[in-house]
Amino acid sequence: MSTLPQLTINTIRTLSMEGVERANSGHPGTAMALAPAMYAVWQHDLKYDPADPCWPARDRFVLSVGHASMLLYSTLFLTGVKDIQDGKVVDAPSLTVEDLSQFRQLNSKTPGHPEYRFTAGVETTTGPLGQGCGNSVGMAIAQKWMSARYDRPGFKLFDYHVTVFCGDGDMMEGVASEAASTAGHLALGNLTWIYDSNQISIEGSTDLAFTENVGKRFEAYGWHVQTLTDGNDVEAILAALKAARAVTDRPSMIVLKTVIGYGAPKKAGTASAHGEPLGADEIKGAKAVYGWPEDAPDFYVPDGVKEHFAEGLGKRGAEAHAEWRELFSAYREAHPELAAEIDCIIEHRLPEGWDKDIPTFEADAKGVASRASSGQVLNAVAKNLPWMIGGSADLTPSTKTDIKGGGSFQPEKWNGTYGGRNLHFGVREHAMGSICNGIALSGIRSYGSGFLIFSDYMKAPIRLSAIMELPVLYIFTHDSIGVGEDGPTHQPIEQLAQLRATPGIMTIRPSDANEVSEAWRTLIPMTHKPAVLALSRQNLPTIDRTKYASAAGLAKGGYVLASCDGKPDVILIASGSEVSLVVTAYEKLTEEGIKARVVSMPSFDLFEEQSQEYRDSVLPPDVIGRVAVEQAAAFGWDRYVGIGGAIIAMNTFGASAPASALLTKFGFTPEAVLDAAKRQALRGK
Amino acid sequence: MSTLPQLTINTIRTLSMEGVERANSGHPGTAMALAPAMYAVWQHDLKYDPADPCWPARDRFVLSVGHASMLLYSTLFLTGVKDIQDGKVVDAPSLTVEDLSQFRQLNSKTPGHPEYRFTAGVETTTGPLGQGCGNSVGMAIAQKWMSARYDRPGFKLFDYHVTVFCGDGDMMEGVASEAASTAGHLALGNLTWIYDSNQISIEGSTDLAFTENVGKRFEAYGWHVQTLTDGNDVEAILAALKAARAVTDRPSMIVLKTVIGYGAPKKAGTASAHGEPLGADEIKGAKAVYGWPEDAPDFYVPDGVKEHFAEGLGKRGAEAHAEWRELFSAYREAHPELAAEIDCIIEHRLPEGWDKDIPTFEADAKGVASRASSGQVLNAVAKNLPWMIGGSADLTPSTKTDIKGGGSFQPEKWNGTYGGRNLHFGVREHAMGSICNGIALSGIRSYGSGFLIFSDYMKAPIRLSAIMELPVLYIFTHDSIGVGEDGPTHQPIEQLAQLRATPGIMTIRPSDANEVSEAWRTLIPMTHKPAVLALSRQNLPTIDRTKYASAAGLAKGGYVLASCDGKPDVILIASGSEVSLVVTAYEKLTEEGIKARVVSMPSFDLFEEQSQEYRDSVLPPDVIGRVAVEQAAAFGWDRYVGIGGAIIAMNTFGASAPASALLTKFGFTPEAVLDAAKRQALRGK
Repeated sequence: MSTLPQLTINTIRTLSMEGVERANSGHPGTAMALAPAMYAVWQHDLKYDPADPCWPARDRFVLSVGHASMLLYSTLFLTGVKDIQDGKVVDAPSLTVEDLSQFRQLNSKTPGHPEYRFTAGVETTTGPLGQGCGNSVGMAIAQKWMSARYDRPGFKLFDYHVTVFCGDGDMMEGVASEAASTAGHLALGNLTWIYDSNQISIEGSTDLAFTENVGKRFEAYGWHVQTLTDGNDVEAILAALKAARAVTDRPSMIVLKTVIGYGAPKKAGTASAHGEPLGADEIKGAKAVYGWPEDAPDFYVPDGVKEHFAEGLGKRGAEAHAEWRELFSAYREAHPELAAEIDCIIEHRLPEGWDKDIPTFEADAKGVASRASSGQVLNAVAKNLPWMIGGSADLTPSTKTDIKGGGSFQPEKWNGTYGGRNLHFGVREHAMGSICNGIALSGIRSYGSGFLIFSDYMKAPIRLSAIMELPVLYIFTHDSIGVGEDGPTHQPIEQLAQLRATPGIMTIRPSDANEVSEAWRTLIPMTHKPAVLALSRQNLPTIDRTKYASAAGLAKGGYVLASCDGKPDVILIASGSEVSLVVTAYEKLTEEGIKARVVSMPSFDLFEEQSQEYRDSVLPPDVIGRVAVEQAAAFGWDRYVGIGGAIIAMNTFGASAPASALLTKFGFTPEAVLDAAKRQALRGK
Repeated sequence: MSTLPQLTINTIRTLSMEGVERANSGHPGTAMALAPAMYAVWQHDLKYDPADPCWPARDRFVLSVGHASMLLYSTLFLTGVKDIQDGKVVDAPSLTVEDLSQFRQLNSKTPGHPEYRFTAGVETTTGPLGQGCGNSVGMAIAQKWMSARYDRPGFKLFDYHVTVFCGDGDMMEGVASEAASTAGHLALGNLTWIYDSNQISIEGSTDLAFTENVGKRFEAYGWHVQTLTDGNDVEAILAALKAARAVTDRPSMIVLKTVIGYGAPKKAGTASAHGEPLGADEIKGAKAVYGWPEDAPDFYVPDGVKEHFAEGLGKRGAEAHAEWRELFSAYREAHPELAAEIDCIIEHRLPEGWDKDIPTFEADAKGVASRASSGQVLNAVAKNLPWMIGGSADLTPSTKTDIKGGGSFQPEKWNGTYGGRNLHFGVREHAMGSICNGIALSGIRSYGSGFLIFSDYMKAPIRLSAIMELPVLYIFTHDSIGVGEDGPTHQPIEQLAQLRATPGIMTIRPSDANEVSEAWRTLIPMTHKPAVLALSRQNLPTIDRTKYASAAGLAKGGYVLASCDGKPDVILIASGSEVSLVVTAYEKLTEEGIKARVVSMPSFDLFEEQSQEYRDSVLPPDVIGRVAVEQAAAFGWDRYVGIGGAIIAMNTFGASAPASALLTKFGFTPEAVLDAAKRQALRGK
């Protein structure tokens, strides 16, 4: 029989391959290859208390190779990580053998890829390659920021590390490249990526497509790089981890050469060990290699393995956690206000009065761009919500998302501090989204901004914000052909539709400065949902709310801004910059004695959450004369205008010209709206 | 007065800054900085005949820093590149002074960013950063492939180079990283990127976010790298270009340190020279630095400048082109069949009989996954369309997109040839899209494949295919929760909606193998439109077409698959894998005496192109009982069911479980459809 460490490693391997085999689906090879590294990290390196997977100062472990989920599930099971229910740790295991045997089954706690919130101990949802890497940079930023803001002399509260397992796929994905470049710039010495270099991709050898020198590339990013040639050499891995921890002025990469499907007689080192069950023969052969008892049942856990983890990781983690608790108690006495802030962060609460400085805007025909009013509101909120941090993908002067006086989040060598609240993501939209997710996973409220068109570059992390229910705020400006001269490549058309079509995201396109205020008032309390603000480049008139309905209606997604006595002949529906256009048409219609109503529809998502009764009160079913106006794809608007209703929208890409010329070209004029409204009013008669 | 070369460089600069000034919008600084490099490349390096910007063997120049469009427009004007009308070169200039003065105006030939098809001489649409870099790799692949397939001893027909101007933004974007890694692997010695390293980004110094060593990174990718410290040193640039051309086994990068807004007294070297007009004072100051005549009018072109280009680029290009024409004439005699193929490629024609082997599939209740039938059809088409090449982002075994016997596109050192038709993109979806665009720009039919969910990683290049009207085919499999165990991160929900909402893309989701055949038959002749095929992972029954309508109806996007006598009480509409589900419900309804119709709706886009009359014949307006069924977001389906119609679709993300369990969980069962249909039938009564 092997030594206890080896036995533990082999238990991780056998549980992983059995989980996949039982599910008849999954990825055994990487789990088998990385089991020794997993053992090294968890047993000897992580500062992690299995009794409390929510401990805020725990080291974070990210399995960016999410397809190897059984590696993580097996480890969470063997280390006895406790479960979380309703946000609280409970005295029950996160995972049992039964859970492992239910891998990839409906409603199990062991889904195909690790899902944040599904399984205690899973720090982030991974699977889409590169995202775990990006998240880890966000987590490392969060640690630096928490430490800079809350640590005090004698109180090193937030002193933790982020460790990532990533693979060839991650290394090929652009998002990981962007994130790595960012981490190098930010000198994130609290970050270690262990790159599982197994030379195998789904199509076969990485020689088919991926022959760069990854280590040298990371050195170019400013990382500390070590290369290990034997994925089974636990001692070497531990030495490398120690060296990585010792380098505090740079992130570290450990290139770890492994054999995918290690132990499987025929499939080891081949693509067929990657994404399908090994089959009975290969499992038998691998178990022989591991010295596994021939008569062991499935999901067999040899005596001593769980105890071994308990004596290593468990004991170390419990002690560190106990020390930290004591430290935090003393901190609470010494710095009660800061401690209260930390409580808020951990419990996803907002500080009292967070919204007290949100401005109200006076009616103003000239108005203000919603990106500008939003910048003002952002600052009003930021003042009272100190743990909101964010930035843009090199567009802050345009997106107006600077927190004034907030300082830049930078290492000392780039003349900033890690306490800065303004992040400079560079021209790296994809990493920005992924990093914002990582920051949000640490409880800090994060935002990322850019032009709405470039949401296309970061759709994947936006979707993951929604899947993980993270309150990341995406502030997208230049939200229509109103962009003007930059032309079709910079003018969003289908982007609103694609965001509205995505489950779990709140997309809001406010029509004026007061709707912007209400949007922020509505979004910030959503602590478990990402939101998108779509904002204009150009000025929007500030609607006279003494004459028209209050902007507070925004909270319901759509509301009657103006109406007639009795049943309208036609309803004009619009969002954002087009609301003032339909108001103009409404005024004309009213003058001409045509009974019209204006519905401001800043958010489909919010509107759909309202009762049928409310929705029918805004859009009475018996009024079939309807016109929707939006400088975006028509797609989706049929929901509110019905078959036969009119949609004035974009059916093509935009064009390069001054915005005013584009409005005429594409038919966003009072005349066009009036004309459509009159025709619709006749339908309604 | 300066020398003619210097005068020419300064003319490019003054035209560029004046264009921006006149438009009161645009990006002057990069054009001013890169004018010397532009001069060096065009005057001394490019093999390019201004008299024929369509010459297939021309060197390609890509301005990935598309915001510096005036740099390119000025150069096209000064070099006298001819115009293209209706696909033919005409004896008129691509651009005149009048065009330059109309920069960024409605319907001008000088839009804000270079737009392919708008301006002769513009090789690709750029502006979204990183895309030009990706495109260039596709162009370089195309050159290698054309050369491998068509060059013969004594006939070096396709021997050209691709040169790119890129900037800090490009270098930060993940797509360019992915493309660079790919180019290094493929040993594309025909590719040179000139990286404009000006240390300035929109937010300020690149020290804010981007401090990696780009040159070292590219060495790690396997590139040949040179660094030049003076962007004004034309001799040094020429020497570096020569050295780059001499290295034929690797792509080349030239890091060129420049001063943004060179010459502007106050703004040079600052972010304010980037994205806004310089203003009169700065322009005056810059002109003084350039030694410009004080009394020169706007858009002044000194004597000798155009002639200088004519004697350099013009003469060299004309000679090379004449030689090539002669060579091609001889080639046509020696290799008439190959020459005919080349004609087809250039003229975007299909070979006769390209579709003759497209199979018809027998009715089969067990059926076949549409990814598998599509793989079969792809091979039937590929056989007769030799210039269709493509691949996947490391998923070919799953997407079934291998061209059997087509060989791998690889350099010799990786055991392939450049004549291979199967591209291995690695796990680099974003670059795949951008590369496919570059290949299509060279006339070759390209396809890229992956899981539908990962279209999120490559939305930007998909959109650019549409903007450029390139017939790139995107083959996306695993198109629904039918993915099963891989779970929500791998199950597309909103992806169909976002593709359908995008202008200019043909999205088709076929319901069975015969619709797959018809889809290919419909898509391939679309030589100016990208298409998306959404295909199933799981088996789909092959519908009995003797009993139900012919799959040829697919060409109209939606068609009546089955109906009743007279007016139906309810119409069941579905796409893809859900069509057989609604057919089952239809059969039940018919049995029960409820008059029902089934509409197969594989493509919203194609259906919307049909006449109102046809659409009404499929979906009669007086039949209000309607049920739409699709395993995707409901968003957009209201168009066909109307207010009050039923949509059985996904309103949340999916889940990890066997596909059959998910169908029940999410309500895609005959019972659920039947139930909804009956309720809708009552509405219709």
